[in-house]
Amino acid sequence: MAGLRKQVFLGTFVSSKNRQELQYLHGAAVCVDGDGRIAKVDEGCGSAELVQDRLLSKLGWERSEVDVHVAKPGQFFFPGFIDSHVHAPQYPNVGIFGKSTLMDWLETYTFPLESSLSDLAKARRVYTACVRRTLAHGTTTAAYFATIDVAATNLLADLCLSLGQRAFVGRVCMDNQDMCPDYYRDESAEVGLEKTLQTIQHVREIDPGFELVSPILTPRFGPSCTSKSLRGLAKIQRETDLPVQTHVSENEGEIALVAQLFPESSSYAGMFDDHGLLTPQTILAHAVHLSEAEAQLIAARGSKVSHCPCSNSSLTSGAARVRWMWDQDITVGLGTDMGGGYSPSILEAARQAALVSRHVAMGIDGADPERERSKLTVEEVLYLGTRGGAAVVGLESRVGGFEEGMEWDTQLIALGSVDDEGVATDGDGEGSDGGNVDVFGWESWEERIVKWVFNGDDRNTKKVWVKGRLVHSRG
Amino acid sequence: MAGLRKQVFLGTFVSSKNRQELQYLHGAAVCVDGDGRIAKVDEGCGSAELVQDRLLSKLGWERSEVDVHVAKPGQFFFPGFIDSHVHAPQYPNVGIFGKSTLMDWLETYTFPLESSLSDLAKARRVYTACVRRTLAHGTTTAAYFATIDVAATNLLADLCLSLGQRAFVGRVCMDNQDMCPDYYRDESAEVGLEKTLQTIQHVREIDPGFELVSPILTPRFGPSCTSKSLRGLAKIQRETDLPVQTHVSENEGEIALVAQLFPESSSYAGMFDDHGLLTPQTILAHAVHLSEAEAQLIAARGSKVSHCPCSNSSLTSGAARVRWMWDQDITVGLGTDMGGGYSPSILEAARQAALVSRHVAMGIDGADPERERSKLTVEEVLYLGTRGGAAVVGLESRVGGFEEGMEWDTQLIALGSVDDEGVATDGDGEGSDGGNVDVFGWESWEERIVKWVFNGDDRNTKKVWVKGRLVHSRG
Repeated sequence: MAGLRKQVFLGTFVSSKNRQELQYLHGAAVCVDGDGRIAKVDEGCGSAELVQDRLLSKLGWERSEVDVHVAKPGQFFFPGFIDSHVHAPQYPNVGIFGKSTLMDWLETYTFPLESSLSDLAKARRVYTACVRRTLAHGTTTAAYFATIDVAATNLLADLCLSLGQRAFVGRVCMDNQDMCPDYYRDESAEVGLEKTLQTIQHVREIDPGFELVSPILTPRFGPSCTSKSLRGLAKIQRETDLPVQTHVSENEGEIALVAQLFPESSSYAGMFDDHGLLTPQTILAHAVHLSEAEAQLIAARGSKVSHCPCSNSSLTSGAARVRWMWDQDITVGLGTDMGGGYSPSILEAARQAALVSRHVAMGIDGADPERERSKLTVEEVLYLGTRGGAAVVGLESRVGGFEEGMEWDTQLIALGSVDDEGVATDGDGEGSDGGNVDVFGWESWEERIVKWVFNGDDRNTKKVWVKGRLVHSRG
Repeated sequence: MAGLRKQVFLGTFVSSKNRQELQYLHGAAVCVDGDGRIAKVDEGCGSAELVQDRLLSKLGWERSEVDVHVAKPGQFFFPGFIDSHVHAPQYPNVGIFGKSTLMDWLETYTFPLESSLSDLAKARRVYTACVRRTLAHGTTTAAYFATIDVAATNLLADLCLSLGQRAFVGRVCMDNQDMCPDYYRDESAEVGLEKTLQTIQHVREIDPGFELVSPILTPRFGPSCTSKSLRGLAKIQRETDLPVQTHVSENEGEIALVAQLFPESSSYAGMFDDHGLLTPQTILAHAVHLSEAEAQLIAARGSKVSHCPCSNSSLTSGAARVRWMWDQDITVGLGTDMGGGYSPSILEAARQAALVSRHVAMGIDGADPERERSKLTVEEVLYLGTRGGAAVVGLESRVGGFEEGMEWDTQLIALGSVDDEGVATDGDGEGSDGGNVDVFGWESWEERIVKWVFNGDDRNTKKVWVKGRLVHSRG
């Protein structure tokens, strides 16, 4: 990628200090170098006048080679969101699930659409819309399931690179001929593995260091893969050290099917472990119905979980227990899981994670302190959508916060405000639609963040940068 | 109100035929007279050229006195939403609930804010923002709880009338001095009843026939009222035939409190019945934890329920069983319940009603057919937000559909579309932000509606009319 101009961002920076707390830096400066890396964070440099003396001279940067961006009062910089589980080809089907549950939903809605994307013009249209839409919602990193098709999968990788979204792009492996429809499956384990290698090779060509786009090994889920292809993927994983993504324990019928297909394995997660796929770089989507032993196995292997509340509620899959997974030392992030999930937004996923945690609580007796504990706070769901997700996709040292050495994957947020007459105005004073968050002026910063989480949408995400590059901007 | 010009609307009209089905009228015309009433529906008159011969000549309307509005292809007219339970003074607190449940939420967040609205400048600001915001989301009718303050309650009624929202405006009665804070309660039952009469008198003066704005008797909830004030309100109800709104069985702690405060009553709903307040014009918000006997009592009295899924999940109140209430012959509508609910949108309430019904299903054994039955379809949640809500507020013969004789309370909906390059464009071609619903072009009308329900927002609501008057329009 071409080098960027150096940049200094001034204003309020909000990010997760840890799971329980947000950190608010007001009147601060973040300096971003030409590689999109944070070179310096200065908590006391809030105005453009101070930039030269406090920052540039120390960094040895010339003023002429630096762009200075000043957030307006009330606006804040927030780390870009990480969508740790999303099916790009299903984007046109968001919301379309009827009364189905996982297995019939796949057959009725999902496989026909995915299959149709071997038409590359259609794939380009769908993938462009998906990447642009998720960028507009502040998703700076996405872990994508593509389809079984090599050319369309490669196209998705190309589009992520050109549109500037950090992405993991996986060709979907599904070779179990008893479980996958004839019109949409790998011809054999061998053919599937060969196709997977082709997509890895393609990404190596377009982004040799996997700086922005990385391949990811993607056995669809237990029922779709033979032991042969699972073992083959594990071998590729050991040889390449690439990440892996799949689904686990989403739905009770699915779990029963896995037990039937892999009778020698002790559990669904155990089945992946038996095939060598439960690695520290493995992302397991859903994990709704894990047993205690399964959770311990996942934690022992260091595999990660992508929690997809919108999808789990929509498909009646169940209510995943995030607090309980944290208690088992499992790393958790958020996924939109489009099209099982209806929304392209990780902010919506965060909101639904808070609500679903309350449904988890409702299932626990009022006298049991776990009822109260199981509820997730706004701080916790924002952590899930940023640092949690970064750890799930193995990027926790590079994205998710504003520390020096991290990369500038950031969104600029502006909330709307209500004037003295009760008329809503765009918080940035530019006259565009300020969205549904109405700030009256007396709210604390903490309350503004809460209002954003519950009523915010893409209208509040004014600008999005990935690795220093501006990749989305609202007029 | 001043007479309006006559209007003819041409295009696609979507509305609930019944709970199970939507009706789609394509290429149809709806004629609205100067009182905002639907004078004629013509299913075969889809173009402006036909208007003169097919409609105006039969109605005896001159072309010069008629405005013709033609919806663009893909747009559709949909009945305005009915918010059957919303607290206008809590609007600034939407989303702010922390980990609280009902009783501590009231004390920490709600009573202080409500009390502060005796400052009429603040009340005007908050109420204007609330009415404008809900109108922008297509809410053409709202059943509002105001505060205990007469002047601020009257101001809310004034604002609904001037901004053009159909509304029920209730001064909140709360006189139990053991349960309500000293700084925010009626001095006595007598004073509270007298203040209630003052607000009724005010609405009579500004809208003598209660054509657009009606008073509504509003005992806050069981714990807040003495028997004396409940009986007094029942007496006013019998004398005036006004509607009643309150809360029932929202939270388990609240239910226990009611049992303790009213030991002679058999249940929470029974307590209202014992005081003469369970009438066919009574709106009961929440009804999460009803017993079978309570549900039968409510059905026998013909009282109605406002289901508030956003609020019930946020405050960990529980998951109300809409299918079960329908099975008991209870009429149900939707409420945003701002600020217990975080969203001003009945479309969001409909979406959450669908999701919460799936959480109800998750609590039912998979072998029990009730699990499947308890899930609400998109058709059903849209019914709840329109005809269901209309029946809850007693307006089912006047709003909620497009039948002749009904009033024109309608929203014009436009969805976004994705061009051949995958770029999202505003569906109305006017360049404004088309929102998050991306139509690719191959979707059936049913699928477009589903996409709207799951990803739509106020950006899709281009125009809103109440009683024929245009009350909201997006640039």
